[in-house]
Amino acid sequence: MPSYKLTYFSIRGLGEPIRHLFHLAGVSFEDERLAYGGSPWEQVKEKYPMSQLSAAILRYLGRKFGFAGKTPEEEAWVDAVVDLFKDFLSEFKHLIYASLNGKSADEIERVRTEIAIPARNVYFKNLNDLLKRSKSGFLIGDGITFADIVVTNYLETLKTFELYNGSDEPKLVALQKKVYEQPGIKECIATRVLTEF
Amino acid sequence: MPSYKLTYFSIRGLGEPIRHLFHLAGVSFEDERLAYGGSPWEQVKEKYPMSQLSAAILRYLGRKFGFAGKTPEEEAWVDAVVDLFKDFLSEFKHLIYASLNGKSADEIERVRTEIAIPARNVYFKNLNDLLKRSKSGFLIGDGITFADIVVTNYLETLKTFELYNGSDEPKLVALQKKVYEQPGIKECIATRVLTEF
Repeated sequence: MPSYKLTYFSIRGLGEPIRHLFHLAGVSFEDERLAYGGSPWEQVKEKYPMSQLSAAILRYLGRKFGFAGKTPEEEAWVDAVVDLFKDFLSEFKHLIYASLNGKSADEIERVRTEIAIPARNVYFKNLNDLLKRSKSGFLIGDGITFADIVVTNYLETLKTFELYNGSDEPKLVALQKKVYEQPGIKECIATRVLTEF
Repeated sequence: MPSYKLTYFSIRGLGEPIRHLFHLAGVSFEDERLAYGGSPWEQVKEKYPMSQLSAAILRYLGRKFGFAGKTPEEEAWVDAVVDLFKDFLSEFKHLIYASLNGKSADEIERVRTEIAIPARNVYFKNLNDLLKRSKSGFLIGDGITFADIVVTNYLETLKTFELYNGSDEPKLVALQKKVYEQPGIKECIATRVLTEF
């Protein structure tokens, strides 16, 4: 049995779905958390291939643990949802950076209105379309996949930036509830320290 | 045997690697090309799930045809390279848009210097690191994968925008040569009409 070590910042970010996947699969791992925004990552990142955390890790573990879809076609749909998420994130991150880098309130508002909100609307529409067609309540197929984990996890960050408000998105609320009730994930959520993003 | 139809714009963009993959695998497909930038896509896109072309299609076909890596670990590396490409593209596209949308020469130069070039440098460094470790000359493992196809194909577009100049990047030149010499791809390259991007 291999042993796993996840090195990521002490935030949810892109690491939390991987943590949840380990908990869901009941596979133990070393959960190394680096201070966010300080020098630690700068000091260590040269040690890591590509100096970044890739969605490929999530996909690799998702497949390994059996949460990546049950057929090649389901796998492609799961991948497509994560691609959709990444496309959204590549727009949304401009709002995160504008806020973290202390831009003016006007500039933050501009980024929110012109970039983040349109991107969120496309993203949510696509997720709702998938959930409308779903019989299981999960995004793809009849069980939980890493796509569900990524999407529901990131709703917390959208809430921080006031881009998600449960009452307008009943299907996403229901999906998050289903994911958060999964054994393993449930205990993880209950005991975690909730960071801002 | 399933039949395939690829619907994409009449540009290389993200569709060309999929076309190359079909040619490499020797699998016939209907190559539907929509006029780029006009109304056709706007008119038809509602018909397509998620209204976009996803890297998931490439991954799905890559796996199906046997060009996605030979082990789960190789598959993860192939995926990581495509994630790396997508991260690069999410920055580089600002230069494409600035050019297509008729921004001022100053603004285009700013986007090139502040966004596109730094992103390209990170991207090329990571590709070079992989190629340095490679024994086969391909990015991952001992044969061609869809990661090689995506990366080398997109070099053409980087050339259009003067972000790639063969003589500075001998390892990428060699990789492109290897890919373009593959049976199937070779004939496709020889007969295609080269679009700007």
